[in-house]
Amino acid sequence: MPVVIYKPERRVIVDGVERVISKHDQWYVGNTSRDFHCGGIVIKKELLKPGKIKIGNHELIIIEASFLDEYKGIRRDAQIITRKDLGFIIGFCGLTKDSIILESGAGSGAATIMFAKLCKKVYSYELEQKNIDVVKENLTKLKIKNAVVEHKDMYDIKSVKVKNTDLVLLDLPEPWRALESARKAVKVGGYIVAYTPSITQAAKLVNMLPEYALHERTMELIDRDWRIKGEAVRPVTADIGHTAFLTILRRIL
Amino acid sequence: MPVVIYKPERRVIVDGVERVISKHDQWYVGNTSRDFHCGGIVIKKELLKPGKIKIGNHELIIIEASFLDEYKGIRRDAQIITRKDLGFIIGFCGLTKDSIILESGAGSGAATIMFAKLCKKVYSYELEQKNIDVVKENLTKLKIKNAVVEHKDMYDIKSVKVKNTDLVLLDLPEPWRALESARKAVKVGGYIVAYTPSITQAAKLVNMLPEYALHERTMELIDRDWRIKGEAVRPVTADIGHTAFLTILRRIL
Amino acid sequence: MPVVIYKPERRVIVDGVERVISKHDQWYVGNTSRDFHCGGIVIKKELLKPGKIKIGNHELIIIEASFLDEYKGIRRDAQIITRKDLGFIIGFCGLTKDSIILESGAGSGAATIMFAKLCKKVYSYELEQKNIDVVKENLTKLKIKNAVVEHKDMYDIKSVKVKNTDLVLLDLPEPWRALESARKAVKVGGYIVAYTPSITQAAKLVNMLPEYALHERTMELIDRDWRIKGEAVRPVTADIGHTAFLTILRRIL
Amino acid sequence: MPVVIYKPERRVIVDGVERVISKHDQWYVGNTSRDFHCGGIVIKKELLKPGKIKIGNHELIIIEASFLDEYKGIRRDAQIITRKDLGFIIGFCGLTKDSIILESGAGSGAATIMFAKLCKKVYSYELEQKNIDVVKENLTKLKIKNAVVEHKDMYDIKSVKVKNTDLVLLDLPEPWRALESARKAVKVGGYIVAYTPSITQAAKLVNMLPEYALHERTMELIDRDWRIKGEAVRPVTADIGHTAFLTILRRIL
Repeated sequence: MPVVIYKPERRVIVDGVERVISKHDQWYVGNTSRDFHCGGIVIKKELLKPGKIKIGNHELIIIEASFLDEYKGIRRDAQIITRKDLGFIIGFCGLTKDSIILESGAGSGAATIMFAKLCKKVYSYELEQKNIDVVKENLTKLKIKNAVVEHKDMYDIKSVKVKNTDLVLLDLPEPWRALESARKAVKVGGYIVAYTPSITQAAKLVNMLPEYALHERTMELIDRDWRIKGEAVRPVTADIGHTAFLTILRRIL
Repeated sequence: MPVVIYKPERRVIVDGVERVISKHDQWYVGNTSRDFHCGGIVIKKELLKPGKIKIGNHELIIIEASFLDEYKGIRRDAQIITRKDLGFIIGFCGLTKDSIILESGAGSGAATIMFAKLCKKVYSYELEQKNIDVVKENLTKLKIKNAVVEHKDMYDIKSVKVKNTDLVLLDLPEPWRALESARKAVKVGGYIVAYTPSITQAAKLVNMLPEYALHERTMELIDRDWRIKGEAVRPVTADIGHTAFLTILRRIL
Repeated sequence: MPVVIYKPERRVIVDGVERVISKHDQWYVGNTSRDFHCGGIVIKKELLKPGKIKIGNHELIIIEASFLDEYKGIRRDAQIITRKDLGFIIGFCGLTKDSIILESGAGSGAATIMFAKLCKKVYSYELEQKNIDVVKENLTKLKIKNAVVEHKDMYDIKSVKVKNTDLVLLDLPEPWRALESARKAVKVGGYIVAYTPSITQAAKLVNMLPEYALHERTMELIDRDWRIKGEAVRPVTADIGHTAFLTILRRIL
Repeated sequence: MPVVIYKPERRVIVDGVERVISKHDQWYVGNTSRDFHCGGIVIKKELLKPGKIKIGNHELIIIEASFLDEYKGIRRDAQIITRKDLGFIIGFCGLTKDSIILESGAGSGAATIMFAKLCKKVYSYELEQKNIDVVKENLTKLKIKNAVVEHKDMYDIKSVKVKNTDLVLLDLPEPWRALESARKAVKVGGYIVAYTPSITQAAKLVNMLPEYALHERTMELIDRDWRIKGEAVRPVTADIGHTAFLTILRRIL
């Protein structure tokens, strides 16, 4: 049983001033059948189970790993779509347990996995064989059965076999080249979402929009962290993550 | 069968200048067994089915309503958590089809419904009877079977009966008063998310955190719309929606 | 002597609930030699001087108008550059009382006036005669002597006569067409700032940059208001003003 | 004569791929009467004058330093108010060449210097002797004559001698304790601006506001950089600088 180990921060008061002597840390342990080394500590395998333990000066808290912890530990060779953006797409497009999704490209499969854990079926198209291998490895590791990754070119309408999906996610450099493929794959009333790092890509897509697609929005989701410590309450300096622009289209014809 | 009617924008060129003579519009039609009146047009009931129709000068496109269209049309007596924030919670906390959720208060049931459509089971606690009635009406209308709304006070640990949930969502004015109830309801490794309009509420919560809860983040999700029309590509003026601060805790003890 | 009249908000407690019965308001009065009508109140001219007065139920506070109050009241036929962006340019480019500035186009003269009140000399180029008339009217009204507005085309290098300025501000639709004119007008070490509503304009400019100009930054300044009332402390919903993108170049050759 | 040396980026095409072999860099040289060492290059003192030079493979561009370059090089023992925020204050409060300013605390004098270069007179109060020494050193280095730094406690109204200023800037941990001092120092119609890292400080100030002060705004100025390279146009990831909250009050009584 995989676990997560938390090492809480340790502070001492020296001459009236509070000092951090050991920072908060955490580790995912996929294999608990051998001892685990972390931050200069060795944890014997028989201790690698949920609960509170003490090793030397360090109090550690161990919990059973959840799907999320395993998900965070997947192999990531390509850049992945963040959970913030995936969550937004799921919420905004009204996906449900009955939804069927086509995404392209698969990258490392981060979107594939999250969709598969919440929806009915995921088809994932990808051109690069090495990405396909990574996705397959990740799907196996997380025991996902309702997703398939296929070696296909989304820009080529003939390669698209799936139909009537609820969402087509385009994580491609030139999403405008996939508009006819997307139409073939998505049902009327379903969504097409393009995920593009540059605003110029989003602009080009929107300016080339065919009549069948209603442009609902082009937006970015900015994620702003706050630091709270007693009376000190402020945004974290230099830490707003721009990830990408999302262009959301609905097939209406 | 409920439908959505789209009326695309109409433009004409007058003296070389393009002018909008009729704006884009859309309507949800829940009951298609009678004629529908919208924007000065009457659509006969026999025309209320998917396809393209022409009434006078207006070309209309009609599509079958999806879950999302019905969801947008639910009764909203209390302010609701937006789909953006719900999606983020689902993605960030790694919810799956197997997840069990407790949320309080239920409000109008917007979160209840979205969680129910993606996860296994939702328990919704609410103090106000009139809100409970609205939630029940909405659950019935959307045919949700895996969610229950109960008349309970989340600040009172004795009223909490559900255990071992994956997520406890606190949409309450004083979430710090629900920390012990939340611990009782959520499993070790599960998440507690507080949704608070004011940063002062988030700060108070974080400053009162018990040892069992690891503070992962306090953040806000800013949603920024872009307008794209040919070469004109700019953020929409005055349109960033702050909705609330999200404080994300994980039970580790 | 021009004055500003403030009418503070009035609140009453009705059945234990605080209600606003008259909102905060304010008026600039340029001409105090006649009675002033505002919000259903008449203020006799002999009362239009600094101090606190009471008219009916309304307590009013009157102060002498400052430069800023008169500035806010200038004629604005064209869209103006906001004080936020002007202030940023002044601060970022290190302008001083000794600075000489060229700006084009003049618009309604808002930038002209602010630069003139802080710096030594402002040259303002403008193509539209009706804008020139508005700028002249505004300069006269605010008694600005160290700014001149001239009927010139900034895209035409031959029309540029001024040299050795500290800043050239380009508030023009195609700033890349003014790069050679700007070089002629700005001294080595001086700044060229382009103010463009669209990111596509900024991108085009940056992608066409000549060797003489160092690209320091392209940025936008987002201005976010907070509402504070007791424990309620939150960003104002839907109120971030995007105004424009600023591209900041330094002449180094 | 102080100079600034620019070393432009150098790129080469290797196997069809563009690679940066030497990054853009720059150095301020305050003393040009001796050779200067930078980035592994030695520049002989006789070359330290405006123009383009070549040393080995490196083309360098040298320009005369401006006030801004010297300003950027001042001693900064305390954290300083950024130029963005100072520029905003100057623009928003409508300061002019005739304005008189009181600021407290002086910190390293960054605000003192910028105000002095644009306005008539600056008074700077500071409690820490070591900060006073730094401010004096910086004022001397930049040859500022119209600013004085004084050893005074802004929380103590008796220590405030200056009157009738146009702006009082409070860069203090507890600005609410300086409200009576500020009123004494600022003229009716003048501005009081509090610069506070935490929103809790701004909230406390606004919630304690006396009747004489009109609360115009509490806001933050977010500064967002964009990266532009050909078709790649996107916000810089993780680089929005929150600096502080600005609370802007106007004395009306």
